[in-house]
Amino acid sequence: MKDIRNRQIVLEKRPSGLPGKETFRIIETDLPEMKAGEILCKNVFISVDPYMRGRMNDAGRPGSSFPLHKVIRGRTVGRVLESGDRQFSEGDYVLGMMGWEEFSIIEAGKVEKIDVGIASPSTYLGALGVTGLTAYFGLLSIAEPKTGDQVVISGAAGAVGTMVGQIARIKGCRVCGIAGTDEKVQMLREELHFDEAINYRKSGNLVDDLKKACPEGVDVYFDNVGGEISDAVMSLLNRYSRISICGQISQYNLDKMSAGPRIQPVILKHLAKMQAFTVSDYKSDYPSARKQLATWLKDGKIKSVEDITEGFENIPEAFIGLFKGENKGKKVVRIG
Amino acid sequence: MKDIRNRQIVLEKRPSGLPGKETFRIIETDLPEMKAGEILCKNVFISVDPYMRGRMNDAGRPGSSFPLHKVIRGRTVGRVLESGDRQFSEGDYVLGMMGWEEFSIIEAGKVEKIDVGIASPSTYLGALGVTGLTAYFGLLSIAEPKTGDQVVISGAAGAVGTMVGQIARIKGCRVCGIAGTDEKVQMLREELHFDEAINYRKSGNLVDDLKKACPEGVDVYFDNVGGEISDAVMSLLNRYSRISICGQISQYNLDKMSAGPRIQPVILKHLAKMQAFTVSDYKSDYPSARKQLATWLKDGKIKSVEDITEGFENIPEAFIGLFKGENKGKKVVRIG
Repeated sequence: MKDIRNRQIVLEKRPSGLPGKETFRIIETDLPEMKAGEILCKNVFISVDPYMRGRMNDAGRPGSSFPLHKVIRGRTVGRVLESGDRQFSEGDYVLGMMGWEEFSIIEAGKVEKIDVGIASPSTYLGALGVTGLTAYFGLLSIAEPKTGDQVVISGAAGAVGTMVGQIARIKGCRVCGIAGTDEKVQMLREELHFDEAINYRKSGNLVDDLKKACPEGVDVYFDNVGGEISDAVMSLLNRYSRISICGQISQYNLDKMSAGPRIQPVILKHLAKMQAFTVSDYKSDYPSARKQLATWLKDGKIKSVEDITEGFENIPEAFIGLFKGENKGKKVVRIG
Repeated sequence: MKDIRNRQIVLEKRPSGLPGKETFRIIETDLPEMKAGEILCKNVFISVDPYMRGRMNDAGRPGSSFPLHKVIRGRTVGRVLESGDRQFSEGDYVLGMMGWEEFSIIEAGKVEKIDVGIASPSTYLGALGVTGLTAYFGLLSIAEPKTGDQVVISGAAGAVGTMVGQIARIKGCRVCGIAGTDEKVQMLREELHFDEAINYRKSGNLVDDLKKACPEGVDVYFDNVGGEISDAVMSLLNRYSRISICGQISQYNLDKMSAGPRIQPVILKHLAKMQAFTVSDYKSDYPSARKQLATWLKDGKIKSVEDITEGFENIPEAFIGLFKGENKGKKVVRIG
C-alpha cells in the first residue's frame, strides 16, 4: 500500500496526572503490505474512553499498558477499502480495535461487520457498543435494580451514565443523575426523562441536595466518578443497597490514593454490596444484550447520546476533555 | 415467683466512645408471675458480642436500640427450672435472647432446646451458635472461597475469626490471620493450624508483613476489624477478590467516621466485590449449616475456642474487653 500515507497518533510519553498534548504525537507512516485474511479499512469513528487513561501508565504487566511510540489502540468503526477475506466486501462498516490512525490493516477475524441500516455507525461505539453493554451489565447484573428502587448515577451525563439512567427507568426505577453543568442537568431531565438531576458543581451541600432529590434514600448507586461525589452518595444508602463500580474518573489522574471517609462501616450498617466489573466478563451474553438494546433503541425507549468531535488531529483533545467533563454522552471523533 | 430475687444489668446511660462501668447498672427485681406457655430458667452462660455496642446507641429507629434502664438482651444459655410448656422439662438446657440477668421468664416459643450430649452448653454460643453460623455464611456465601485461595482474616483470634480460619482450611484455602498479641498469633498457628499469623501491634509495616505472609496476594479478605488493618490488606488484593464485611470493631467506638485511603479505585482495579451481611438473612439454611458445623466439631476438624469469664457482675467488663482485644475466641460469661 505504498500509495497510502497513514497518519497515526502514538503514545509519546507516559503521562503523570492529566495527559496533555505532550503525551501524544502524530506520525506519518507507510501502510504495510496486506496479507491474506486481512482487510484494509479507512477509519471513520474513533472512540475515546476513560479506561484508556489507565493503559497509559506503566502497569508493569505485559499487555496491560499501551506501548510507547506505538499507535494507541481503541474501539473504532472503519469502512472496508479492500478485503482479503470473503466475509467482508468493500464498503462494509466494521467495528474493531483499530485505533487512533486513519487507515488500518487488520485480520478479518478481529473485526465484526455492523449493520448501519439499524443504527448509524457511531451508535456501535455508544448505545449499541461496549458503552451500552457496560451500562446494561453493570446495572442489571451487578446492581440488580428492582421496580421502585432509587438509583443514583454519578457521571450521569457521560457515555455510560446516560445509558444506565435510561435502562433503570425502563426497569421501573426512580433515577437521579449527578452531573457537572446546568446544560447536562437539563439534558438528563428533559431529553432523557431522569426524575432528578443535580449539578454537583453548583451544589453548596451535595448531601443535602441528594436528600431532597432522593427522600427515600438510595438503593442502587452506579458510580462512574468516585471521590467526594461518592462520599456524599454513600451517606444515603438504604438497607441492602448495591453499588456498582464502573469507573472512578475523578481518581485516574491522581498520583497517589486520595483519602476520604472509610466506607466499610457504612457498608456494614446497611448490609450493602459494592462490586466492580468489567464488561468483557459478560461476553457470552453480549448477543442477547445487544438485541435488547437495539429493540429499546428502535422503540424509542432509549436514546444514544453522542458528542462528536470532528477531525483526526483533535483526538487527543477529545480524550483529555473526558477528564474535564466536557462530553455529553458518548464522545467519538469523526475522522472520515 | 416472689421468693426469687433477680439480678439484672441494665443500660444506664448511652455510651459515647468506649463503654465504661457507668454505662451499666446492676439492679435487683422480683420475678413476675409465670404465665401459661412460659418457662422460667436460670441463666448459665451469657454471650457478649461486639454488635451489641451498636444497639447501645440511639439509632432513632424503634427496635434497633437497647432501651435505657431495661435489661440488656443478648444470646444466653439457660437451664429450665420450671416449665409451663410441655415441650420443655426441668433441667433442659435452652438457648434464647434472655439477656444479662440471672433468671428469665420467657415464652417457650422463643427459646430452643440444645443437646448438651453433642457439645458443652457454651458451644451453642460459639462454634455451634450464631458465631459459628456467622463465620460459615460470611465466608462460604459471601466470599465463596475456592481451593488454593489466599484468605486473610482480621480479628482472626476472635470469636468469628477463629471459626472462619478453620472453615477456610477445611475448604483448601491458605489462611493468614491478623491478631493483636503474640499469644494469639501462637494459638492461631499452633492450635488452629493457620498457615500464617501476624501480630499487627508488633508489625513495623503491616503491608510488608502481609506481602511476606501472602506472596501470591489476597483472594478473600474476611474483615472483622476495619480501619488501618483493612487499609493494609486492601493493597494486596488479587483480581476478582472478595471482601466479606462481618465487623468493624475498630470503628464502633468512634464518634465520627474515620478517614483513610479511598478504596473504590482499588476495588475497580481488581474487579473486587465487598459485601456486608447479617447472619439472620440465612435463617432458612441454619439447620444444614449447624449439622455441618457439628460434624466438623465431632470429627475434630474445628475447635470451639472459648474464653470464659466467671461471675455475673463481670459481664460489663467482659463486654468492654472485646473492644480492647482481650478475648481469645468466643467470650462468654458463666453466671451459674
